[in-house]
Amino acid sequence: MRDVFIAGVGQTPVTKDHRTRGRYLGAAAVKAALADARLEPKHVGALYVGNMLSGILANQQQLGALIADYSGLAGIEALAVEAACASGGAALRVAYQAVAGGIYDAVVVCGVERMTHVERDSVTRALATAADWEIEGVCGESFLSLNATLMREYMRKYGIAAERFAPFPIAAHGNALTNPHALLHKSLDVETYLASRIVTDPIRLFDVSPICNGAAALVLVAQHVAAERAAPRVRIAGSALATAPLALARRPDPLDLTAIGASTSQAMRQAGVDHGDIDLFELHDAYTIMTTLTLEAAGFAKPGAGLDFADADRIGLAGDLPLATFGGLKARGHPVGASGCYQAVEAYLQLAGRAEANQVDGAGVALVQNIGGTGATVVSHVLLRDD
Amino acid sequence: MRDVFIAGVGQTPVTKDHRTRGRYLGAAAVKAALADARLEPKHVGALYVGNMLSGILANQQQLGALIADYSGLAGIEALAVEAACASGGAALRVAYQAVAGGIYDAVVVCGVERMTHVERDSVTRALATAADWEIEGVCGESFLSLNATLMREYMRKYGIAAERFAPFPIAAHGNALTNPHALLHKSLDVETYLASRIVTDPIRLFDVSPICNGAAALVLVAQHVAAERAAPRVRIAGSALATAPLALARRPDPLDLTAIGASTSQAMRQAGVDHGDIDLFELHDAYTIMTTLTLEAAGFAKPGAGLDFADADRIGLAGDLPLATFGGLKARGHPVGASGCYQAVEAYLQLAGRAEANQVDGAGVALVQNIGGTGATVVSHVLLRDD
Repeated sequence: MRDVFIAGVGQTPVTKDHRTRGRYLGAAAVKAALADARLEPKHVGALYVGNMLSGILANQQQLGALIADYSGLAGIEALAVEAACASGGAALRVAYQAVAGGIYDAVVVCGVERMTHVERDSVTRALATAADWEIEGVCGESFLSLNATLMREYMRKYGIAAERFAPFPIAAHGNALTNPHALLHKSLDVETYLASRIVTDPIRLFDVSPICNGAAALVLVAQHVAAERAAPRVRIAGSALATAPLALARRPDPLDLTAIGASTSQAMRQAGVDHGDIDLFELHDAYTIMTTLTLEAAGFAKPGAGLDFADADRIGLAGDLPLATFGGLKARGHPVGASGCYQAVEAYLQLAGRAEANQVDGAGVALVQNIGGTGATVVSHVLLRDD
Repeated sequence: MRDVFIAGVGQTPVTKDHRTRGRYLGAAAVKAALADARLEPKHVGALYVGNMLSGILANQQQLGALIADYSGLAGIEALAVEAACASGGAALRVAYQAVAGGIYDAVVVCGVERMTHVERDSVTRALATAADWEIEGVCGESFLSLNATLMREYMRKYGIAAERFAPFPIAAHGNALTNPHALLHKSLDVETYLASRIVTDPIRLFDVSPICNGAAALVLVAQHVAAERAAPRVRIAGSALATAPLALARRPDPLDLTAIGASTSQAMRQAGVDHGDIDLFELHDAYTIMTTLTLEAAGFAKPGAGLDFADADRIGLAGDLPLATFGGLKARGHPVGASGCYQAVEAYLQLAGRAEANQVDGAGVALVQNIGGTGATVVSHVLLRDD
C-alpha cells in the first residue's frame, strides 16, 4: 500500500441556518478543499461523500453524482458512504483506500449534512435509524434515550455525580470560541452546565451536541502529488474501521465499546504510534458519556477512570491530551454525516500549523475518531506531520 | 493493483413476500456466498453493503455493521454504499478496490433491498430520491415519469412504434422461467405486451421492472486465495464507475447517457476486451427504454439503432449478445440496491459454467452494468473466465 497525504481541506461554517441546500454545502466544501490543495478538477479521480440523512430528510439520494456535478467534477467516479454518524469517517476510509491501493493519485472526500429544515421531532426520528430499529427504535428508543441509558448505568456502576462530566463540554465550548466555523460561540461554566435542563435523565442540555448543518472536505493524494506541494505535509499513517452489534442488548457489556478499542489499536499499530505519542485527539463527543467511554475503550484510561480526563489541565489546548480542539461535536456542532470530515479537517489544520488561535503547540500526531450509533461503527485515523 | 477474483456467490429468491426483514435477507446472501466460497468468517476482511431505501422505508441505517453482526461477521470493517439503484454495483466497486489495492485478501459485498412492506405510493416516492429532488421531484416527477419522458422523446425522434420494444421483456421473461431465484415465472408474448395497461404513457406495464425484495452477495479474493480453489476461476478484469448530472435538464442530450459510455469503455479497456468479445451483457433493464439507450451508449449500436437488438435471435441465450440471462431486472426482479449484486452473481454463474438451464455456451467474457437514476451513476464490470 502507498502512503496517503492530505493536500488540502475545506469547510463551511456549521450553522442552524437551513437556507443553503445540501448540494451547495457539499460543493462549497469540495471547491474550497480543491483550491486549498491547488488541484485542478481534471486531476481528481473520485469523490466520496459521507452522508446519513439526506434521503430521509431531503428526499435526495445519490449525493455522489449530485455533488460531483455541482462541484465542477461532473462525470468522475462518485458515490456515497453511509455508516450513520460515522458516515464522514467511513467515506474518509474509502477515500484513503482508493489512494493507498493505487486506484487513484488524488481523490476528494466530503461529509455533508443538513438537518434544521425539518421539525426537531423528524430529526430525532431520523437519527434513530442509526440504532437497531427492530430492537430499539420500535420500542421508542431515541439516540438521547440510548445515551441516557449508558450514562445512567455508568453513574450507577461507578458512583459518579453529574458535575463530573462538566469539564468536557466546558473545554469544548472554550475551544469553539476561537473557531470561526463553529456553531456555538458561548463559553460555559459548571453552574450553567448544572442549571441546564435535563433533556433525558440524566442527560443535560450541555451533555448533547446540537442539530445543525455543514460540510467539510479533504483532498487526499499519493506521495508524488504531495511532494509537489510545500511542507509541512500531513500523512494518514493509520486507518481502521471496526464494528459491533447495533443494539445495546446484543453486546456483552454495553459500557465496553469494543469497536473503539479495535479500531483505535489497529490504526495506532499501523501508524507505529502509542498512546503517549498522541498530541491531540479529535474524538466523537456527541454526548459526554460517549467522550468518557471513548477515553476508556481507546485505552487512554482504565474502565471507570475516563472522567480522570475531565480536567481543563489535561484536555485543554496546552494539556497532555487536548480533545476536540476546535470545539468538537459539542460546540463546533454535529451535522452528523459531516462530522467525521470536520474532525479530519481540524486535525490536519493542527498538524499543518494552521490552527491559529486553536493551535496545539508542536502538534505532530493526531488521533481522529468518528462513531456511528452507540459505538456500532467506529472509524479511527492517525495523522502525522511528515516534515 | 492486484488481480481480483470471485470465489463464491449467494442469493435469496427475489420475492414480493415482505416477511423477511432486510437484515435476514442480507445475512442469508452473505452466508450463502461464504459457504459457496468455502471461506471462514475469520478470513473475511470487510463487508460492503449496497442499499438504497432502508433508511427511508424501514427506519434502518448503518446496514454495514448490522448485516455484519447477523452474518456471523460481528466486529469486522463494514459500511454501506449508496448510489440509488446502482448501490449494489457501487458497493461491488468499493469491494473490488479493497482487494485490488491490497487492503484485504478477502471481502464480501452484499446488495440488499426490501420494498414491499409499505404502500406502493411510498415506494414510488422513495424511488424518486434517486432523481434530482429540487429540480424533478418537487415538480412531481417519478422514476416512471422520467423514463416515460425519455421513451416518448426516443419514439418521437426516431419514429418508433411501441411494439418494437416488446422483444426485450419477452426475452427477459423467457430467461426467468428457468431461474429459481426470479420473481416472475410467466412467459410473455407480443399480444400480452401490447394489451398490457399503460402505466405512464408511453410506458406499458411490461416495460417496467417490478417492486420486490431480495439480497445477493459475492466473495472477492486476491489471487493467492483464488489459487487454493478449484477452476474455473472468474476474474474481475475491469471495473469503472462514472457519473452524470442527476437531472435530465442538466444534460446536453437526455437521450445520450454519457456515464454509460464512459464507464463501459473504461472497464473494457482495463480488461483488454472489445465489444465483439462480450459473450453476455447483464444490463440495467429497469425500463425497456433504458435497455435501448444502454445498447447505444455502451457502443453496441449507433444512436437510434438500439432496437436492432430487440430480436430473440440476437439477445437470447444462443444469440450473439445474450442480455439479462437470468431474467434481468425486468423478470428476475429489481430490488433496487441489490440488483447490481444479482447481476454480478449471475454473470459469475455463467462464466463458472454453473448457469444450468440458463447457461450461455462457452461464456468467457461478461459485461455487467448497474445504473443509478436515469443514468447519473453507472458502474461497469468486465468478468473473465480465467482457466
